[in-house]
Amino acid sequence: MEYHLNGALVPASEATVSVHDRGFRYGDAVRVGLRAYGGSVFEWELNEERLRRAADGLGFADAVPEDLHERVHETLAANDLADAHLAVSITRGVGGGLTPVSDAEPTVIVTAEERPRGGLDGTRAWDDPALVQIVKTRSISGRTIPTPALTHARLDGVLARSEIERASTDDYHADEALVRDEEGTLVGGAASSVFFVADGTLKTPSAAVAFPDVTREVVLDLAREESFPVETGEYAPADVRDADEAFLTNPTWELRPIARADGVAVGTGPVTQLLTRLFDEYVERRHYE
Amino acid sequence: MEYHLNGALVPASEATVSVHDRGFRYGDAVRVGLRAYGGSVFEWELNEERLRRAADGLGFADAVPEDLHERVHETLAANDLADAHLAVSITRGVGGGLTPVSDAEPTVIVTAEERPRGGLDGTRAWDDPALVQIVKTRSISGRTIPTPALTHARLDGVLARSEIERASTDDYHADEALVRDEEGTLVGGAASSVFFVADGTLKTPSAAVAFPDVTREVVLDLAREESFPVETGEYAPADVRDADEAFLTNPTWELRPIARADGVAVGTGPVTQLLTRLFDEYVERRHYE
Repeated sequence: MEYHLNGALVPASEATVSVHDRGFRYGDAVRVGLRAYGGSVFEWELNEERLRRAADGLGFADAVPEDLHERVHETLAANDLADAHLAVSITRGVGGGLTPVSDAEPTVIVTAEERPRGGLDGTRAWDDPALVQIVKTRSISGRTIPTPALTHARLDGVLARSEIERASTDDYHADEALVRDEEGTLVGGAASSVFFVADGTLKTPSAAVAFPDVTREVVLDLAREESFPVETGEYAPADVRDADEAFLTNPTWELRPIARADGVAVGTGPVTQLLTRLFDEYVERRHYE
Repeated sequence: MEYHLNGALVPASEATVSVHDRGFRYGDAVRVGLRAYGGSVFEWELNEERLRRAADGLGFADAVPEDLHERVHETLAANDLADAHLAVSITRGVGGGLTPVSDAEPTVIVTAEERPRGGLDGTRAWDDPALVQIVKTRSISGRTIPTPALTHARLDGVLARSEIERASTDDYHADEALVRDEEGTLVGGAASSVFFVADGTLKTPSAAVAFPDVTREVVLDLAREESFPVETGEYAPADVRDADEAFLTNPTWELRPIARADGVAVGTGPVTQLLTRLFDEYVERRHYE
């Protein structure tokens, strides 16, 4: 594999950063995961805008290079990839202590790995519906870091996932953690957004608390286009457990039904199936026709 | 300079980590800053215990190598350093997504740089008393990450320091941020502990909220040995502004008086001066006699 590092393609094994890189020392970096279908990036504009906004929140919006889209495509081409998962990381650069140095050169990295296309004719990136578990670990607050899920300070997600690993038994091995914020409001999965259906309405945590997931945006748009009742708001984890249907979204999983939450059966249903179909057709139209 | 990387000394420029290192991608690493005086590490046992406890909080206590103290000394010796600042970083290793892979090899790094000894006969690492400013950025909660200040997820500290940089004027350029937790309780500086004197008592945030700073421990012990009234508890930033004396501690600054908080004069006084003297004598006894 070859990765893009500071404007040049390098063998993956040579894609390294200094131990003084601020992304390493402090998590002082932004990062977005991308999905490519048929050689082009899913919702590039939305993702780029999100990355730029996250960098702006940390005070280094200028570090996002103008030719980032080209670098992503060069990474796909160099590895002969059409259906892939990509990640873009941009750090504030090397040096300084907690106080950033003003003249640091940003570190810009694009990594890629193959991922089957999923969707209408493909193989999903997941084998079975998700088993989720509510964890004690709370997500990093927006009063601490704006859009923490788009930075390299993701230790809250690592600890949430570690919690479900430790709690796993032969009977129940959850593969996604449901995370709350400091106030106990449901945020989503550790690396996914959560949707559920209750009272004939599709519900998901509002943008103010949810992870900034582009797949979530697309699913919301598709539901609204179908005039399906949609509500965004503040929910508790128990609302997912009590729902008629529930599913997770992220660039890798696309839409993935939640089979059980804390062991309680939830599962799929007509709304999840319809939205999955609409999502798959949307990807088909945009990337393969 | 030479750094210690995974058990071997390497030129500083070759001290790099993979872009897939979990310390880089997620802040999934522990880190402690150390001070060396006269060729030996200040309070090694306390620091090592703290590092091990932090790693245990993340679930990889085993990653702390048995010979870590030797590696630190090899790093000092290789660079011919007697008075120095060192940092030890231990990451969970390379690979995996948010869910840690079980067989990752930890990455273990020791860096060093010269630092004058400070203290009785030396030059302090700071030129003037500190100017501090209370910031909006809240510290990462212990309900999110245990001992966040000892991990690579330090973006809260970076943002706190960035805030004071942005707010600086020709008249007031603070060099440390005073940070609160989500509830508004004073935690300390972004990279230091805070002490203040009020009602004839030395006060500092309790261990439950304070940064796990070894210098803070030593200062508390010295004050108690002098039978000086000491109180640890929950305070507000305004308590520092209103104090008779206030100072910051960390391995680099040792004890550093706070000249002004939010522009309001605080300054040094007999308690700060006495504790500084006791600290300097303690370092002298332990490292230079």
